[in-house]
Amino acid sequence: VNFASDNVAGISPEIVAAIAAASTGTAAPYGDDALTARVESRCADIFEHQVAVFPVATGTAANALALASLMPPWSVVYCHEAAHILGDECGAPEFFGGGVRISGIAGNDGKLDAASLATALGQRGGHGVHHMQAAAVSITQASEAGRVYAAGEIAAIAEVARGAGLKLHMDGSRFANAVASLDCAPADITWRAGVDVLCLGATKNGAACAEAVVFFDPADAAEFAFRRKRGGHLLSKMRFISAQLVAYLADDLWLRNARHANRMAARLADGLASLPGIRLRYPVEANEVFVDLPDRVSDGLLAAGFGFYPRGGHGDRFVRLVTAFSTIEADVDAFVAAATALTDRPGVR
Amino acid sequence: VNFASDNVAGISPEIVAAIAAASTGTAAPYGDDALTARVESRCADIFEHQVAVFPVATGTAANALALASLMPPWSVVYCHEAAHILGDECGAPEFFGGGVRISGIAGNDGKLDAASLATALGQRGGHGVHHMQAAAVSITQASEAGRVYAAGEIAAIAEVARGAGLKLHMDGSRFANAVASLDCAPADITWRAGVDVLCLGATKNGAACAEAVVFFDPADAAEFAFRRKRGGHLLSKMRFISAQLVAYLADDLWLRNARHANRMAARLADGLASLPGIRLRYPVEANEVFVDLPDRVSDGLLAAGFGFYPRGGHGDRFVRLVTAFSTIEADVDAFVAAATALTDRPGVR
Amino acid sequence: VNFASDNVAGISPEIVAAIAAASTGTAAPYGDDALTARVESRCADIFEHQVAVFPVATGTAANALALASLMPPWSVVYCHEAAHILGDECGAPEFFGGGVRISGIAGNDGKLDAASLATALGQRGGHGVHHMQAAAVSITQASEAGRVYAAGEIAAIAEVARGAGLKLHMDGSRFANAVASLDCAPADITWRAGVDVLCLGATKNGAACAEAVVFFDPADAAEFAFRRKRGGHLLSKMRFISAQLVAYLADDLWLRNARHANRMAARLADGLASLPGIRLRYPVEANEVFVDLPDRVSDGLLAAGFGFYPRGGHGDRFVRLVTAFSTIEADVDAFVAAATALTDRPGVR
Amino acid sequence: VNFASDNVAGISPEIVAAIAAASTGTAAPYGDDALTARVESRCADIFEHQVAVFPVATGTAANALALASLMPPWSVVYCHEAAHILGDECGAPEFFGGGVRISGIAGNDGKLDAASLATALGQRGGHGVHHMQAAAVSITQASEAGRVYAAGEIAAIAEVARGAGLKLHMDGSRFANAVASLDCAPADITWRAGVDVLCLGATKNGAACAEAVVFFDPADAAEFAFRRKRGGHLLSKMRFISAQLVAYLADDLWLRNARHANRMAARLADGLASLPGIRLRYPVEANEVFVDLPDRVSDGLLAAGFGFYPRGGHGDRFVRLVTAFSTIEADVDAFVAAATALTDRPGVR
Repeated sequence: VNFASDNVAGISPEIVAAIAAASTGTAAPYGDDALTARVESRCADIFEHQVAVFPVATGTAANALALASLMPPWSVVYCHEAAHILGDECGAPEFFGGGVRISGIAGNDGKLDAASLATALGQRGGHGVHHMQAAAVSITQASEAGRVYAAGEIAAIAEVARGAGLKLHMDGSRFANAVASLDCAPADITWRAGVDVLCLGATKNGAACAEAVVFFDPADAAEFAFRRKRGGHLLSKMRFISAQLVAYLADDLWLRNARHANRMAARLADGLASLPGIRLRYPVEANEVFVDLPDRVSDGLLAAGFGFYPRGGHGDRFVRLVTAFSTIEADVDAFVAAATALTDRPGVR
Repeated sequence: VNFASDNVAGISPEIVAAIAAASTGTAAPYGDDALTARVESRCADIFEHQVAVFPVATGTAANALALASLMPPWSVVYCHEAAHILGDECGAPEFFGGGVRISGIAGNDGKLDAASLATALGQRGGHGVHHMQAAAVSITQASEAGRVYAAGEIAAIAEVARGAGLKLHMDGSRFANAVASLDCAPADITWRAGVDVLCLGATKNGAACAEAVVFFDPADAAEFAFRRKRGGHLLSKMRFISAQLVAYLADDLWLRNARHANRMAARLADGLASLPGIRLRYPVEANEVFVDLPDRVSDGLLAAGFGFYPRGGHGDRFVRLVTAFSTIEADVDAFVAAATALTDRPGVR
Repeated sequence: VNFASDNVAGISPEIVAAIAAASTGTAAPYGDDALTARVESRCADIFEHQVAVFPVATGTAANALALASLMPPWSVVYCHEAAHILGDECGAPEFFGGGVRISGIAGNDGKLDAASLATALGQRGGHGVHHMQAAAVSITQASEAGRVYAAGEIAAIAEVARGAGLKLHMDGSRFANAVASLDCAPADITWRAGVDVLCLGATKNGAACAEAVVFFDPADAAEFAFRRKRGGHLLSKMRFISAQLVAYLADDLWLRNARHANRMAARLADGLASLPGIRLRYPVEANEVFVDLPDRVSDGLLAAGFGFYPRGGHGDRFVRLVTAFSTIEADVDAFVAAATALTDRPGVR
Repeated sequence: VNFASDNVAGISPEIVAAIAAASTGTAAPYGDDALTARVESRCADIFEHQVAVFPVATGTAANALALASLMPPWSVVYCHEAAHILGDECGAPEFFGGGVRISGIAGNDGKLDAASLATALGQRGGHGVHHMQAAAVSITQASEAGRVYAAGEIAAIAEVARGAGLKLHMDGSRFANAVASLDCAPADITWRAGVDVLCLGATKNGAACAEAVVFFDPADAAEFAFRRKRGGHLLSKMRFISAQLVAYLADDLWLRNARHANRMAARLADGLASLPGIRLRYPVEANEVFVDLPDRVSDGLLAAGFGFYPRGGHGDRFVRLVTAFSTIEADVDAFVAAATALTDRPGVR
């Protein structure tokens, strides 16, 4: 049983089947195929809006390419201080952006809030040639703390961004989990709320390697094809990325997978929260449970073979547990039972 | 029937099966999994040498990342003037290399030859700070004209390169076809001949999206992991790239697929070469047939639904036909029959 | 009377004379001249150490090129949050470094302190491939708040840096003012304290456009000449930059100019500090006075034609006053007298 | 006597005087001063056109920044194969352009001709995402062979460029020599002929370190100030660059200096051309004489202390001799006399 990340999960059977189905015959390479066209038209339906969609194989590529499309190299993009683009992409946005800067802002629940953004923008020393220029804002849906942004929160951020002439990017590596959690229309938390470009994740939620950069204003995408190609992210047999996305977006697989993962996280949270000495850090709204575990419990669970990372640098016993489309109730229950057994002893601190 | 590229082909059934087999259960992400380790050990066996191996999803990424590892940004890499890195990667090597320069050298059969390389290096105006510095040589195996470099040819190039302090890179997007054609040990045309790093292709030869950068001197790979990650080319579920490579390299699938494609190309060449007015541009050694077709034949074949690109800029009737692991004899024979019918008329020029 | 910056000052007569003296005859271009050689040998004397010295025309170029020499593109350089490299160079370090990141740390008096640096380094989430890699520390001497780092403070920072494998860079755009203030050997606050590379400023202290990048370990400078050339910072008539530096470093002109500027700042600070409602922000150790002025005083001084920038974003009345080699006592006294007159009225808040 | 380059010359007395005159008092930094404004207004007069002008300290910076302003990183700029931007700037255009490519085209007299440009553009394999995109053309006035482009030649190139959607850049490091040679209006060989941006040199023709990037369409200059600053090319005491340019452009100093240098070159050419065994490579139209010298003459002149570079890689005895504003007739005559004496012997080949 492995809750270390949703990246440890495999592939949804429907997506395996789609790859297999596409594996015979021939098709035009480099995205000039029917499946890739299908991804774009399907996104237009789901988002109820004209879109320009570009499949890529990794979330880091999606984010870095999308951000680079929004701003020149002397730009600053603002985000939460725990954002993946800031802490976990080894400088990919800086590389693709030609030397842009990412500025982290503190905020509760891994979420940027509009007021803090406004303050940060207001504190900038000026707009002259000596300073890098504010150009974009990036938010992560669901956040790095497993919380979701409500439509109103996004709209408030977008208003601040727009007022300062900034574009709004959404890192949606767990976008499906957020939509499932909010039970809203995808449009409500994207373009209707002011999002300019969404990196729509599929890999964590059942695909093998498939993400889509979704521009709600095709003008922002004018140079994307060149950026993607020279970044080495235009796959020759693109249809095998697109096949994953088509299957992912068909028959609500993306939402079914996300709802399941969210339910498993809720079940896990419920089971752990009732134990003595165990505290949830954040309300569980998507597929991540952040919990403080007593050392003895944490050590005991790892010793018993349960998979998770104790989070370094934030506290000895701070643990992130991530569920996926493939998590089963028995896994959750086994984890809770083991934790219960470990806490149910004298001397547990 | 589509001979436009080996990229139009699908996936070998063995590789589809490998993806499916890896799709259940959990595994460590980002390449810390058993399948990825397997790719490296399998390459060490095949190449009879210590290697550092990095799977990526595209050939452009493989080439650009490999070259960037070999030289600082003020470097020049020499290659044949028709090289893929020069003409077909939209500046990816320049981007990943931070502004390096690619210098094309003319040569027969799409091949760089040692003498021309030596001449080009000798003509450089100096080695001072005003000039970009020669740093690497890149050759493509099989060449962009479908010819293969013999071991001795590579060794001669390597000797010139080494004498000038340059590294030798091999773009091996059709490496399997070359090995099959030469019927040699993979080592013979790589490290034994002086190659420092090989980009080993699998996508064109049966994989969905899998290439491997193979360093024969791990010291050259010291920074590769950082370059790959910040290039967005470290896949979170890397095992699904590695699974393709493991299957590709198992049971000689890579060589069986390549031998088949080569045979189909030979059959196609034989069929066409005997027709009046049709001329092969190059001897066929791998899986590509370059042929001059009379306009009427070319137009007629396209009209009949056969897939290929008339090559722009080189002449109206210059055509590249590429076979793949999935090409069947009937496809070849149908093409030849149609060409025969089109030539078998009065008035064909 | 203009205290807006030491950049508003002109050129020391000795330096004008040196330019004129070098203006006749011929000399080898691109730094292969006697004056440029003289700069390096003079620096070796002054710093009592082997040095590799590279003149450039701007401080931003000096800093950006020096930092780029110390680290690969996926690196982080740590500095005080008010550092010039972070806030006033429009991303030049990111550009020359190929996408490096600059991480600002809070600290009193514009100074980084060793303990905060150690904390920041300790809080990093890991050293794996997902994270940009800590590679260098940069400090500004004198600091952006006009304070100077004592030798022991620098040594403490260097110890933390070295312990983490980081290089130590010093932005010395006001290095002369710091040496004059500390009355120490230049070596004491550079290589003896652990500094790897110093950007030695001359422009603010009497030159027209002359800075020198001084490497204390020539190994760090191995690629500098290429970086400088391709940055467009190798002047064809380099001798006219070098002539400025030779004159600057001759007969202690650099220290005489700095001592004078420091004395003028002290006189200005003394004059202002005694006035009611005026508060010095920092002790005055070099040539900058940071002072809170009542609005009425600030407005009155500006109206009277005195030059300075009210600092935006830090408070309405926060003012930086900078003296230079060319500041005369009468200027200082006129400013103080005007401020006195403005405060010597009922109703001044 | 040194004819190695016009970079070996010193500074025109008028320009030294201008630096000295500007060296007292205070002025706004970073180009917000009266002298810098004067440069722009003077250029507008001289070119009879609205211009946006940006002084910088080196020709490499001027060229690289100007080109980067005209095109995105996946672009190709076409120029003559001997162009300075291609062979003598260590990749500065590639660096500032973020990885652009420079493509050299053969041509007589160091000059690009319209027909060859059209052919090169026509041979490009396509305009799709796989290929770097043609974006600009660069010509050098006077050319690297010391020839000048007539207005009609430039207009022909501009027509081809414009027809392909490309911008036209002029490297005018010896622009004054060309204007003096053609005795034309500066407008005639710039915007009237279709040039979009000119790098106007002054350093080779009497300044210490001063070049100006002149945009004839201010829209092309929209981002230049940011590019210049983050390139480290915005001088804090910009007025000392601008002072040079103001003096250079005042009272026709630029043209007087150029006319003198051109005359000295003509005198030198005349003197040499009459000698047996000495052959001029190109007609002398500006301030450069390219000549084939017998070994014995070349060696003898060097031994006698005359300064010039035997050009490596082009032939043992191929020599470039460059005159400057400061060359005197006696220098020329001494050189010719020495050459005469060396040729006037039996056995000279």
